[in-house]
Amino acid sequence: MNIILLHEDDFISPTCVRLSDHRLTHILKVIRAKEGDTLKVGRLNGKLGSGLIEQLDSDSCQLAVTLEQAPPPATPITLVLALSRPKMMRRIYRMAAEFGLKELYVINSYKTEKSFWQSPVVEADTVHRYLLEGLEQCVDTVLPTVHFKPRFKPFVEDELPAIATGKRALVAHPGDHAPCPIAVKEPMILAIGPEGGFIPYEVDKLVEAGFETVSLGPRILRVENAVSTLTARLYDGACDR
Amino acid sequence: MNIILLHEDDFISPTCVRLSDHRLTHILKVIRAKEGDTLKVGRLNGKLGSGLIEQLDSDSCQLAVTLEQAPPPATPITLVLALSRPKMMRRIYRMAAEFGLKELYVINSYKTEKSFWQSPVVEADTVHRYLLEGLEQCVDTVLPTVHFKPRFKPFVEDELPAIATGKRALVAHPGDHAPCPIAVKEPMILAIGPEGGFIPYEVDKLVEAGFETVSLGPRILRVENAVSTLTARLYDGACDR
Repeated sequence: MNIILLHEDDFISPTCVRLSDHRLTHILKVIRAKEGDTLKVGRLNGKLGSGLIEQLDSDSCQLAVTLEQAPPPATPITLVLALSRPKMMRRIYRMAAEFGLKELYVINSYKTEKSFWQSPVVEADTVHRYLLEGLEQCVDTVLPTVHFKPRFKPFVEDELPAIATGKRALVAHPGDHAPCPIAVKEPMILAIGPEGGFIPYEVDKLVEAGFETVSLGPRILRVENAVSTLTARLYDGACDR
Repeated sequence: MNIILLHEDDFISPTCVRLSDHRLTHILKVIRAKEGDTLKVGRLNGKLGSGLIEQLDSDSCQLAVTLEQAPPPATPITLVLALSRPKMMRRIYRMAAEFGLKELYVINSYKTEKSFWQSPVVEADTVHRYLLEGLEQCVDTVLPTVHFKPRFKPFVEDELPAIATGKRALVAHPGDHAPCPIAVKEPMILAIGPEGGFIPYEVDKLVEAGFETVSLGPRILRVENAVSTLTARLYDGACDR
């Protein structure tokens, strides 16, 4: 946790918050802060700044906050991801928030196990928790939006073309395609299949919806490593903002 | 497991192997293969090819193997990594193998907890197991070499300059440095700090050893996500080999 994220409910006045949950535990046990110390804070979906500890004991922490700095710019890649194993999805939510991705569409695919749609990783509370962890890691405040689309065909045919409008649309798929481009200068939408990949029908449907098929080379990457590799390659701003 | 990796001990003749361990379980339970099927195989540190199942039961699997294809090219980045939490190190070993990195130096740093040096993640058997998982994922046979250097100063002063000779040497460190370059066309050596980063003394020592300090932008990434992001950005060949 490289930043304490503040929620609306924490504010007891416009410039003062009181915390008593796991963030208090973090302040006491990990940061080992004391009254008078200043912590890095941010308002969820708002600005970054600092919080001066005015009062601290085992029950609560009261901070006087100053919030003046804009959060880092978003990474202009919309991610369309086939639902994968829950363990992997938890890491991907955290990673997506950490990399500054702001729009995720989690979709069904032929190789997505049906049981995954009954797991906690498609529940709002779980998703929210892992996204927060990502923001707390990378010092950002802007919560990504995660949309679940449990029906592949209606989503790809009826909704995806509008979502992809104005964006360079790529689907990463093993095989003899053009290499994935590098440092693209326009907004992007990137589709990544499940473990084992999209089936040919699904790739065809994505191509019909305006997606270019690109290759990541001869190595077959885990889904989460494909997400990080593609994000890092496609978005030059990751390093030079 | 996208490939069955074969060890010297498996060969009962130059073109025939017999398997009876977790790979047999995988063939039976995950692939659900039967006699006459052909599986993707590779000889550890050797060539890729195929294995025809000649005999299969619950005790063993015998394969007639043909090994003619070279493994994918190595990624020309030597990684120098401060020892981090065991959970993270396990993922990093697997990821390094998956990304085709072949030389890792795991070093001490001020923020490395001493107890990490007593954990299984510095033991050869553990390291080997996670490296194999990475190779099995990405369909490669060439095992990376992991060197442990529990003393920072002697390693950086006495050994590192020779290791870095002929390579572009970069240390990723938060702050107002030049952005991390993209698609570098020469061999590289990349140093990444522990959670919380290298301390200034350590960065100075690396600079004295010939390293340039580069920034990954305003977001603070987890160590494992820094490894994947930097590897993807630095090595263009990840996509167009």
